[in-house]
Amino acid sequence: MAVQTVASSTDSTGTASARNVDLGPAAALSCRECGHRVPLGPVFACEECFGPLEVAYDFSSYDTEQLRERIEAGPANIWRYAPLLPVPADVADKPNLNPGWTKLVKADNLAGELGITGGLYVKDDSGNPTHSFKDRVVAQALEAARVFGFTTLSCSSTGNLAGAVGAAAARAGFRSCVFIPHDLEQGKVVMAAVYGGELVGIEGNYDDVNRFCSELIGDPAGEGWGFVNVNLRPYYAEGSKTLAYEICEQLGWQLPDQIVVPIASGSQLTKIDKGLRELIGLGLVEDKPYKIFGAQAEGCSPVSAAFKAGHDVVRPQKPDTIAKSLAIGNPADGPYVLDIARRTGGAVEDVTDEQIVDAIRVLARTEGIFAETAGGVTVGVTRKLVENGVLDPSKTTVVLNTGDGLKTLDAVAGTGLTATIRPSLESFREAGLA
Amino acid sequence: MAVQTVASSTDSTGTASARNVDLGPAAALSCRECGHRVPLGPVFACEECFGPLEVAYDFSSYDTEQLRERIEAGPANIWRYAPLLPVPADVADKPNLNPGWTKLVKADNLAGELGITGGLYVKDDSGNPTHSFKDRVVAQALEAARVFGFTTLSCSSTGNLAGAVGAAAARAGFRSCVFIPHDLEQGKVVMAAVYGGELVGIEGNYDDVNRFCSELIGDPAGEGWGFVNVNLRPYYAEGSKTLAYEICEQLGWQLPDQIVVPIASGSQLTKIDKGLRELIGLGLVEDKPYKIFGAQAEGCSPVSAAFKAGHDVVRPQKPDTIAKSLAIGNPADGPYVLDIARRTGGAVEDVTDEQIVDAIRVLARTEGIFAETAGGVTVGVTRKLVENGVLDPSKTTVVLNTGDGLKTLDAVAGTGLTATIRPSLESFREAGLA
Repeated sequence: MAVQTVASSTDSTGTASARNVDLGPAAALSCRECGHRVPLGPVFACEECFGPLEVAYDFSSYDTEQLRERIEAGPANIWRYAPLLPVPADVADKPNLNPGWTKLVKADNLAGELGITGGLYVKDDSGNPTHSFKDRVVAQALEAARVFGFTTLSCSSTGNLAGAVGAAAARAGFRSCVFIPHDLEQGKVVMAAVYGGELVGIEGNYDDVNRFCSELIGDPAGEGWGFVNVNLRPYYAEGSKTLAYEICEQLGWQLPDQIVVPIASGSQLTKIDKGLRELIGLGLVEDKPYKIFGAQAEGCSPVSAAFKAGHDVVRPQKPDTIAKSLAIGNPADGPYVLDIARRTGGAVEDVTDEQIVDAIRVLARTEGIFAETAGGVTVGVTRKLVENGVLDPSKTTVVLNTGDGLKTLDAVAGTGLTATIRPSLESFREAGLA
Repeated sequence: MAVQTVASSTDSTGTASARNVDLGPAAALSCRECGHRVPLGPVFACEECFGPLEVAYDFSSYDTEQLRERIEAGPANIWRYAPLLPVPADVADKPNLNPGWTKLVKADNLAGELGITGGLYVKDDSGNPTHSFKDRVVAQALEAARVFGFTTLSCSSTGNLAGAVGAAAARAGFRSCVFIPHDLEQGKVVMAAVYGGELVGIEGNYDDVNRFCSELIGDPAGEGWGFVNVNLRPYYAEGSKTLAYEICEQLGWQLPDQIVVPIASGSQLTKIDKGLRELIGLGLVEDKPYKIFGAQAEGCSPVSAAFKAGHDVVRPQKPDTIAKSLAIGNPADGPYVLDIARRTGGAVEDVTDEQIVDAIRVLARTEGIFAETAGGVTVGVTRKLVENGVLDPSKTTVVLNTGDGLKTLDAVAGTGLTATIRPSLESFREAGLA
């Protein structure tokens, strides 16, 4: 059974569906603004106040040590945290891409370069199946789609999400239909199309694509369609919690002192905070302060601008940056990000495109990690925060790399040969290489 | 201390260095042809018969169950197998990229498409740090380079190897100097250059690059240089054994019945066989028959041609195929591959470029795995072997994907939009998508 609209699902079939819904510890959807609770269903906006719905859990039956043992005995992917996610207990047996459990790289060379002495780690999500953190969130949306009886997985995208949805749908046996602006770069089109789903170009820009998707959700033509980042968004967004879980477990069940997170919609940062608070509440980590820092590109820095101005609201911007995976000019979770940065004693900062490219090179040169532009943003912001005295270099710090440099080769296109020589030792010596 | 030439190392300093060399269970180098043994050192050819040297081990002290427990308690990368590799026991504490422990994907959808009923698995090495199996072999070479006192890591390459060497050297704090043909595609140059090492274009083709590297090894200018695939080759090649170890452990310490392996130089296939035989000898898996199948592109199929003709020698070919990472026209380990295919009851087969592209699409569409052309070769050959009745569809079969589709986008460049529409439901319906 696929429930299409907010009204019908919460008023009638939403309750009906809740009786059959097995999403593990997920108990209900709860409005982030007014706290109104509705049964689990494919809905995303509160019927009372139009605030965003998010998953509320019942973790009351868990014993801390048993839970820790269960997690540690679990698979080397996000499903080790199934007891903390909106998925059925047998999720690991179903065909999906099993993302997560990516490397937390101790980055001593980079630490030296940035002047960080308290321990620096890069959480490298380029190791996911389609090489971005999007595999984490799509995996959650897929399981929700299965439970709600959807047969088509859909999204609007300009890059990473398209590939993640196409790949996950292919393996799970779902139809997929992904909408993108019709004039995207050919490389991105190929990456999204290779999984064999429908890939529809929309004559218009990304805003036009989004508007069309919203129309489609309300239309009979969209019946049976799960839009991962629209009607499945409450479940989808929870996938980012797994970054927090993994970081803490990989640190030996310790909270980091400081985390630097990229901001697109802001959802990832808010869910990392949620994940950390859950671990504290469950007794899996010690309750101690941590600081969350948000990172943006200067060319799309609405949250950073609001943070610096001391505002509670975020003024939309028209994006103009090479960090296209972060280029959301009107980030839905912007106000929540401001709250979290201020509450934890963190900050939000931005860097120029030139600083982004430089940071990509620094990370590659020091640690052998080739990040996409979003990784250049977090590393660049980390450097800036240290230089400005905002980030404490004597504390344990984790920087997120959420994507893969192979997908944003243009950003470092100027990189090339250090020398060209004839195939002779004489030419080798002339070039000063000996 | 860096030992440069075959003669000097085995005659004098080779023996000296052997006294200080800690490469774990590695006991000596042994000639594959005549069995002559020399001390561990940076040498690759037998002083007696010019045959290839390979690492010989002393595993005599191992207790099977203790070894199994030690492996299972090890890190989620190739260093869990440190007791079986030519590396010091503390290798996991040193800065390297920690490749391996990639996913073994149960590929039920692909199995259905190919008509395999006995269980089909894809060993997906695109999950490695630089997204190819080359990270496994470079990691071994790096540790050998450390032990032998080299300070520069080098290679000749046209693709995957360049990135793997650049990244590994960056993280380990080595200088790197990679040689490539000067007219490579810009994307490949960027990928190799981003890690900040020297990237030298040679005016000539890949053969010219190789010839130049051989000259450099014998020259004082190459002093202190470890060429991963030349003077460090015996250690480098052992990295491929980890594919065999992981496959068996991930199958629950079981041998697969059939494995399909791509052939470039043939080294990977021979080392997978070596790894399987070691596991049998150590009692970690049951001693039962297995078959190894080799996969080539028709446009570079010297081993397949020799197999079909019943020859023991391999006649060189001039490569002409889209599977460039396999395009070695005169594969050094070709005769050994023929031996293994015949001894195990396997075969060597090849597929056309069109079949390669089709197989890339099939794998992506059925399992959400985007393989490079080499993965298209193995999947395509698997399909052909089933159709020809050579591969038994009722047996457990493992197919290797050794690289990432993002690196060979051109192969599927024809893939694109399934439709282009205006941003309206009317246009959506007209396109037949509803």
